[in-house]
Amino acid sequence: MSSLPAPREPLRRVAVTGGTHGNEMCGIYLIRHWLQAPGELQRASFSAMPVLANPAATAACRRYVDRDLNRTFTLTLLSSTATPSDPYEVTRAQELNRLLGPKGTDQAFDFVLDLHNTTANTGVCLISEASHSAFSLHLCHYLQLQSLGVPCRLLQYETSGKETYSVESVSKDGICLELGPQPQGVLRADLFSQMRTLVASILDFIELFNQGMAFPAFEMDIYRVLGSVDFPRTADGDLTGTVHPQLQDHDFEPLRPGEPIFKLFSGEDVLYEGNSTVYPVFINEAAYYEKHVAFLKSERIRVQVPALPGLTSSSTLAP
Amino acid sequence: MSSLPAPREPLRRVAVTGGTHGNEMCGIYLIRHWLQAPGELQRASFSAMPVLANPAATAACRRYVDRDLNRTFTLTLLSSTATPSDPYEVTRAQELNRLLGPKGTDQAFDFVLDLHNTTANTGVCLISEASHSAFSLHLCHYLQLQSLGVPCRLLQYETSGKETYSVESVSKDGICLELGPQPQGVLRADLFSQMRTLVASILDFIELFNQGMAFPAFEMDIYRVLGSVDFPRTADGDLTGTVHPQLQDHDFEPLRPGEPIFKLFSGEDVLYEGNSTVYPVFINEAAYYEKHVAFLKSERIRVQVPALPGLTSSSTLAP
Repeated sequence: MSSLPAPREPLRRVAVTGGTHGNEMCGIYLIRHWLQAPGELQRASFSAMPVLANPAATAACRRYVDRDLNRTFTLTLLSSTATPSDPYEVTRAQELNRLLGPKGTDQAFDFVLDLHNTTANTGVCLISEASHSAFSLHLCHYLQLQSLGVPCRLLQYETSGKETYSVESVSKDGICLELGPQPQGVLRADLFSQMRTLVASILDFIELFNQGMAFPAFEMDIYRVLGSVDFPRTADGDLTGTVHPQLQDHDFEPLRPGEPIFKLFSGEDVLYEGNSTVYPVFINEAAYYEKHVAFLKSERIRVQVPALPGLTSSSTLAP
Repeated sequence: MSSLPAPREPLRRVAVTGGTHGNEMCGIYLIRHWLQAPGELQRASFSAMPVLANPAATAACRRYVDRDLNRTFTLTLLSSTATPSDPYEVTRAQELNRLLGPKGTDQAFDFVLDLHNTTANTGVCLISEASHSAFSLHLCHYLQLQSLGVPCRLLQYETSGKETYSVESVSKDGICLELGPQPQGVLRADLFSQMRTLVASILDFIELFNQGMAFPAFEMDIYRVLGSVDFPRTADGDLTGTVHPQLQDHDFEPLRPGEPIFKLFSGEDVLYEGNSTVYPVFINEAAYYEKHVAFLKSERIRVQVPALPGLTSSSTLAP
C-alpha cells in the first residue's frame, strides 16, 4: 500500500461536522455544545471548526428533509445551477461545499471529521474512502493504541470508478466516525462521552502530525465493503422476515456459509449462501430499510501500512 | 380494590391494533402478517380483528403525520365535525372510533389490545388506565404465571378527572402492550417473537375467561404513574445534558433521593431531589423528547386483587 497518498503539509483547516443526519444525536449535541464552547476543538497548530451539517433535518429530528445529505456531494449536484425547486439537501450541500470546499480544489479544507450514529451494534467504526486511506489508517491505529477499552475498526469503501458523495469528500482528506448502537432520536450519555473522547484523540493525532511526528509502519486488519444484502421481501416489497437473532448485534463478527441471516415471519430461517466467510456491518440499521440494505458484507483483510513520514520543519512552522 | 369493574359477558368483539405509532415496528409487522394469515388470532369463542391503526404514519415510518394518534381519542375530537383541514390523525381516530367504538357506547368493541415499542429498556410492560384495571390485573398476573422468562409489569395511569385519549379507550376494556428496547424503525426478531407470544397468551386468557373460568384473588406489585421529569434545558429549550449513565436502561428499578439522573454536557451530575424512592419508566424514550419527558416517575404499590368470578353458563353460550 506504499502508493497511498498522505498529506505533505500540516492540516490547519479542519472541520468537525455533526447532524449530517438529523436524528443521530451524539454529533448534533456535540456540535451544538462546541458552537457555544469551542475550546475543546483547539490545538496548538489549528482550531477545528464545528459545523451543524443539516440544520433543517436536525430541527425536525429526521435523517433528512428531501434526500440523504451524505449522498449529495457529487460534483454533478454540487455544480448544478441552483433553482428554487432544488431539494433542501442539494442547496445545503452547495452551501457546505462553499464553506468546506470547493471539492477537488486547493481551497478545500484539509480535513473533515463527520460524526454519525447507527442503530447497529458497530461499536467504534471509522469509515474511509480508499483514496483517503494512508492518513486514515494511521489515525485508526493511533486510536487503537489509546486503549479506549473498545475495538476501533476501519471500514473501507472502494470508490474506484464511482464518484464520491459524502460530506467529508469535499475536503482534501477526511473520515466518518460511526458509533453504535444508539436509537435514532435518543442521546445516550455513554455514547456521547465516548464520541467526545474519540474526537479529542483524533484532533490530538492531527496535532502530533502537524508538529512533525513521524508514525512508523505497522500491520492491521481492516474491513472492506463487498456489497449489501436486502431483507427478504414479497414481490410488492413488504418484509417477509427480519435479521436473524443469531446475526443481530454481531457486527464485524464472521458469518460463514450456511449460517442463518434472516428469520421469516413464517418461522423459517434463511441461511447465508455465499461461498466464503464475510463480516457483516450495519446489521439492521434503521435508515437502511429504505435503501434495501439489511446489512453490508465486508471482507477482513490484513494490510501493511507504510510509515507516515514526519513533515519537514519548514512546513510545520506556525503560519 | 373490590369495587373495580369487571366484564360480565364474554369478550367476543376483540381487536389487536398495531402501528398506532408508525415507527414502532413489532406491532406493524405482526398486524401486516395477521391481515394475511389471521389464524393465530382465532380462538374457540372469538376471532380478534387485526387493525393497522395509523397507515399513513406507518408508510412514512414516522410516529405520526400531524399529531400523536394515541392522544387523539377524546370525546371532543371524536365528536367534532369533520373538515378537510383536520389533522390526519383526527380523521383516522374518527374512523377507528366508528370501527371499534363508538367510545362509551354499548356498540363498542369488548376489548382492544394496542401494540407498542419503546426505545427504553422497559422489558414487557402492560399499560392500563385505572378504570380498566380488574381485568387488566388478572391478565397481567396470567402472563406472569406463563413463565415467559422475563418480568411482566403493569403500569397504571390514573385517569380520574382527566379524559381518556388512547386507542384502547374507545373499547369497553383494553390494554396497551409495550415492549422495549427497540429503536424506532428497526424490527428485531427477538422482540417480534416475544410480542407474538405475548399476544397469543393474552388471547388465551380472554378465551379462558370466555369459557367461564374463574380466577382467584391474588396480590401483586404494580407501578402507578406519578408524573414526569424533563431533560435539563436552556431557557431556549435546548438540552444541556441527557439521562445519566447510572439511570439509563434501569427502567422499573428504584431511584432514591440524591442519586444521579442527568449528566450535563459540562460534566456535572444532576441528582434526584425528590423526597422518596420512585421507579422511573420510559427512560430516554425517543418520542418523549418533544413532550419534554426524560422519564416518568412511578410508585410501586402492592395491590390486593379480588377474584374474577367465572361467567355464568348462560352468558358463555356461543352466540
